[in-house]
Amino acid sequence: MSQALGVALLGAGTVGSGVLRILERHRERIEARAGGPLDVRWIAVRSLTKPRDLPTNARLTDDPLEAVHDPGVHVVIEVMGGEEPATHLIETALAQGKHVVTANKVVIARSGQRLLEAYPDRLHYEASVAGGIPIIKPLQECLIANRLDQVLGIVNGTTNYILSRMDQAGISFGEALAEAQAAGYAEADPTYDISGLDAAHKLVILAMLAFEAPFSLADVHVEGIGQLETTDLAYAREFGYTVKLLAVARREEAVELRVHPALLPREHPLAKVDGVTNAVFVEGDATGPLMFTGAGAGSLPTASSVVADLVEAARRLRSQGQEPNGPLFRQGRPRVRPPEEMVSPFYLRFRVVDRPGVLAQIASAFGRHQVSIESVIQRGRGHEPVDLVFITHPARVASLSQALEAIRALPVVHQVAACLRVERGWGHA
Amino acid sequence: MSQALGVALLGAGTVGSGVLRILERHRERIEARAGGPLDVRWIAVRSLTKPRDLPTNARLTDDPLEAVHDPGVHVVIEVMGGEEPATHLIETALAQGKHVVTANKVVIARSGQRLLEAYPDRLHYEASVAGGIPIIKPLQECLIANRLDQVLGIVNGTTNYILSRMDQAGISFGEALAEAQAAGYAEADPTYDISGLDAAHKLVILAMLAFEAPFSLADVHVEGIGQLETTDLAYAREFGYTVKLLAVARREEAVELRVHPALLPREHPLAKVDGVTNAVFVEGDATGPLMFTGAGAGSLPTASSVVADLVEAARRLRSQGQEPNGPLFRQGRPRVRPPEEMVSPFYLRFRVVDRPGVLAQIASAFGRHQVSIESVIQRGRGHEPVDLVFITHPARVASLSQALEAIRALPVVHQVAACLRVERGWGHA
Repeated sequence: MSQALGVALLGAGTVGSGVLRILERHRERIEARAGGPLDVRWIAVRSLTKPRDLPTNARLTDDPLEAVHDPGVHVVIEVMGGEEPATHLIETALAQGKHVVTANKVVIARSGQRLLEAYPDRLHYEASVAGGIPIIKPLQECLIANRLDQVLGIVNGTTNYILSRMDQAGISFGEALAEAQAAGYAEADPTYDISGLDAAHKLVILAMLAFEAPFSLADVHVEGIGQLETTDLAYAREFGYTVKLLAVARREEAVELRVHPALLPREHPLAKVDGVTNAVFVEGDATGPLMFTGAGAGSLPTASSVVADLVEAARRLRSQGQEPNGPLFRQGRPRVRPPEEMVSPFYLRFRVVDRPGVLAQIASAFGRHQVSIESVIQRGRGHEPVDLVFITHPARVASLSQALEAIRALPVVHQVAACLRVERGWGHA
Repeated sequence: MSQALGVALLGAGTVGSGVLRILERHRERIEARAGGPLDVRWIAVRSLTKPRDLPTNARLTDDPLEAVHDPGVHVVIEVMGGEEPATHLIETALAQGKHVVTANKVVIARSGQRLLEAYPDRLHYEASVAGGIPIIKPLQECLIANRLDQVLGIVNGTTNYILSRMDQAGISFGEALAEAQAAGYAEADPTYDISGLDAAHKLVILAMLAFEAPFSLADVHVEGIGQLETTDLAYAREFGYTVKLLAVARREEAVELRVHPALLPREHPLAKVDGVTNAVFVEGDATGPLMFTGAGAGSLPTASSVVADLVEAARRLRSQGQEPNGPLFRQGRPRVRPPEEMVSPFYLRFRVVDRPGVLAQIASAFGRHQVSIESVIQRGRGHEPVDLVFITHPARVASLSQALEAIRALPVVHQVAACLRVERGWGHA
């Protein structure tokens, strides 16, 4: 491990506090990957008097320039938002030879071209588009072998939530907006999201990366969702479409940049992206269609991208000809669970005689072996054997095997025709 | 630009020929990003006598070791497949200080631990899992701020195609397999895919990255799809599930690795991944659920990931304290299309009087301005005004505006109530 790198965090709001939380939670692994300690020396805040519970020994300041100028600071993390003073602070840090990590879409959309041309290696902005979804690095590095002529994005969670609610619940724009505000998904003044302006900033950044050319907000045709009527979502559904606020970058003989509500065919992968989820859909001439889906905002998701950039900055700072690499395997080998200890719900289909009491016999065999039943479909179709189908609650494979052995032995059971796992692994459900 | 880096391509089959095609197609941009010329000096093939149309001046050899040993070769691309001689060739190249790029899941699943611990910076394997989808680098770099406890993948296109067809067309496993073979999505001997073994190799690699620990094939509980009956897919649908061949890596107090057909709730993002498409679903403790979707196999998609790794290897080889960076903007600013020149289908809703002939008047106004109609919904509901809803074929905004002006002027039209774009941007449709 080499000596500590100094970090200044400009902003301790939603994203900044997420960064501190992640650094605290995963410090050991993050520093291993970063090649050495990361020392948050400064946290620049708007008000020094506001009580805070910041899990760090950093010095608080309300003068972010003081933090940027500290020669002990090697990486500046800008998560204040807004165009100024953020742009000036970022540029000052870059001019001093520091690395900058930012989540600021306004700065990158408006000044990214100039800053990246002057400092191509030291400005990191994965968090500026689509929060926790890795999209900047995939576009910039993983898809280098492709010509990209199209990027479609759902890059504003607020509007996607509103449109999903209007579509699913048949409520008006105003009602859905009120719901979004109550759920914390929309600001008190939602203009920036609703108008499409937030999505337009992100589109400028995506287009810059995909088409390797500079664009500005003035190039984007923007329409918001404030005028949308629920009845149009219903008609759209009749035609086989879903309405989404899309950010579209397309390159033919000219480039087209637009943000507007659009009808998407229901089979389109983006049409299935609901709620506050974001997604970016890209077509490469080699890869074909690709989609990246996940949380587009929020404290921890956005901070996840900020910290990934911080690690990359640290690795570059510490590299001497070769980037340092933390150990690939950080721990001993964990225990691997043998199949018979695994637990999951199961789908089971039995071929049985068509007679009253069969269900009870099978259910009782399940019960004796601690396998509990969630649902059942029973079909009498006149000619035997008939199907009796179960979904169980989570059960141990060992218990299930014993239950199946007992059930197989029942005279009323012809066959255990199917045994499949049910996998609900989503949202820790 | 520095001097050329020597490249040896071991294998000129599906993936190898894709690599050569991409290098030819995008040579200028790829070399700019790689910091200088890339010179494919050797192509190792199985048979020298087989006629080939290789777009390169490289020397052909049937002795891959000869290519690996050439001191002018700095990067070895292994796309032969199979465990041996691939593993030996990869290890020989690494031991000589060369970078290796491989698409070989068998080598990485079986020997990746040993090779990556010995040569952590010089072995690149983005193409070994999920073909053209960036997943290795996102797991390894972009998600470093997360603890990952779950990875779910649809990582075998053959079986996903078969299951999709069984589900959608209600055909048997055997019929769907025959279809897949006819479409080129399944091998003549499909055992490796059908048995789940291909997915198991990929799962070992995903688990190694997600859990930062070594695993082997023996740790994976594997069940294939050969025993699946269509009737179970139908019952699963009745319960609200879809059947997929899932690769599951989950970490609780022990790690669980399994590949098997599983019932997924229809709302799960993975349940919507159909046909040969692959997807990897990850949950980070900071990001929440993320999904990466795209082509999991094929010549150009897999080659896309190989070439991205080649560029990364070249950048590392050329870096002296700092990685070289190609120019961010490679070209002049392209023309940006003004909104009135944009072309797309539109959804239009008019409020009109409920009287015969209204549709004809509007349709004729469209026709006069070169806007052609794709479909229409007309509703008479007794009390005026009523909705008349159109979807147009692609139309120029300027023409549409003129048509709308004419339509607005019609005495039978109360209002142009909605005007939305239709976006079908998928598969260049």
